[in-house]
Amino acid sequence: MLRYPGAMASRTSTALTHPDRAALTFTTVMAALADPVRLAVVARLADAGPDGELACSTFALPVSKSTQSGHFKVLREAGVIRQRDEGTRRLNQLRRADLDARFPGLLDLAVPQGRAVIASW
Amino acid sequence: MLRYPGAMASRTSTALTHPDRAALTFTTVMAALADPVRLAVVARLADAGPDGELACSTFALPVSKSTQSGHFKVLREAGVIRQRDEGTRRLNQLRRADLDARFPGLLDLAVPQGRAVIASW
Repeated sequence: MLRYPGAMASRTSTALTHPDRAALTFTTVMAALADPVRLAVVARLADAGPDGELACSTFALPVSKSTQSGHFKVLREAGVIRQRDEGTRRLNQLRRADLDARFPGLLDLAVPQGRAVIASW
Repeated sequence: MLRYPGAMASRTSTALTHPDRAALTFTTVMAALADPVRLAVVARLADAGPDGELACSTFALPVSKSTQSGHFKVLREAGVIRQRDEGTRRLNQLRRADLDARFPGLLDLAVPQGRAVIASW
């Protein structure tokens, strides 16, 4: 079977942009974390381990697929998560080191709140 | 001169409602703190001391009076500040004890961010 390089590179042509650590802003990160669904995503990723990556499809969030995509986008653009495409999957990773460096203690506050959201579903 | 009880009680007839400590929610408080002007208000109040009260008119925020009133309202309704009317002044106080009890460390993160906002003006 022939394999074409890049044939499964990305499900969309949109480049996934991420702010550098130095470009993270407190207000944008706070706004990203001011939502129960996004807090749940953060908690799931935090509990996936320091290098844990989870595909978008594994979250089973109680919202529509397009709403879910919007939430992931807000988190990525704020610098809370890193996303990359692998084949047809979009993988998500918490930017814990960056967040802990810029806003120490914030994730430690947010993650238990996200766990509480998940427990309430 | 005759003094009528209550004649200076309030500049408006709107009752100032405040959520109880137990009713504070993380997402609402996070959203309230996700704004530079509101962070500046929080820092000013934090630096006014534990029981410090500051009148709205003393903040000199770089926004219109009605925008400023909206920011104070968001902070009050989220449970970040307590407001009371005294004569023609509306006094503001940070609800540090309530916030520290419910979301330990959050104010310690937010106050320096608010100071940075003020320093940038």
